[in-house]
Amino acid sequence: MLSISQFQELIRMTYDAKDRERGMEGTFMWFMEEVGELATALRSGTAQEKAEEFADVLAWLATMANVVDVDLESAVEAKFAAGCPGCGKIPCACQPGEKP
Amino acid sequence: MLSISQFQELIRMTYDAKDRERGMEGTFMWFMEEVGELATALRSGTAQEKAEEFADVLAWLATMANVVDVDLESAVEAKFAAGCPGCGKIPCACQPGEKP
Repeated sequence: MLSISQFQELIRMTYDAKDRERGMEGTFMWFMEEVGELATALRSGTAQEKAEEFADVLAWLATMANVVDVDLESAVEAKFAAGCPGCGKIPCACQPGEKP
Repeated sequence: MLSISQFQELIRMTYDAKDRERGMEGTFMWFMEEVGELATALRSGTAQEKAEEFADVLAWLATMANVVDVDLESAVEAKFAAGCPGCGKIPCACQPGEKP
């Protein structure tokens, strides 16, 4: 079991010095490169390749959050723990026009 | 405390029926729209706006993982729990040319 906060802290311990040196804009470029690799894996990758690219995108998302001091776990709990932000329900009952 | 698996399951309970209907390609478009909103928040948003956009990107990443049956927590544990995938160390000791 790995909490979102524990994962963000793991990425901080592993990469924080380099991440802060690189800064937000350079980190965003790396994140986008990994998003591109995820797109490739989604289109034509094996299950293993898909898993690895999801891991990389999540790691770079955590890095970006570290660089700008956002707590990912608090952010998603605030937005999603009480149900869909649009309708407040689990499962979501928003109209398809609002949330397809 | 919210594990990565619990969050992915929360998103599944909230949105799975819509997500599977929409499919991978349509879901990727929504993910990218949220990535664009995150870029805007990173450039000019408040701390609250940044947190909300990180939450949306993480939620759509979890949705994509649900649609293609990837377990995000297992994926990041396999890739990062034992240290940087490049050098195996925490903190990362890769040369800047390999991992800036």
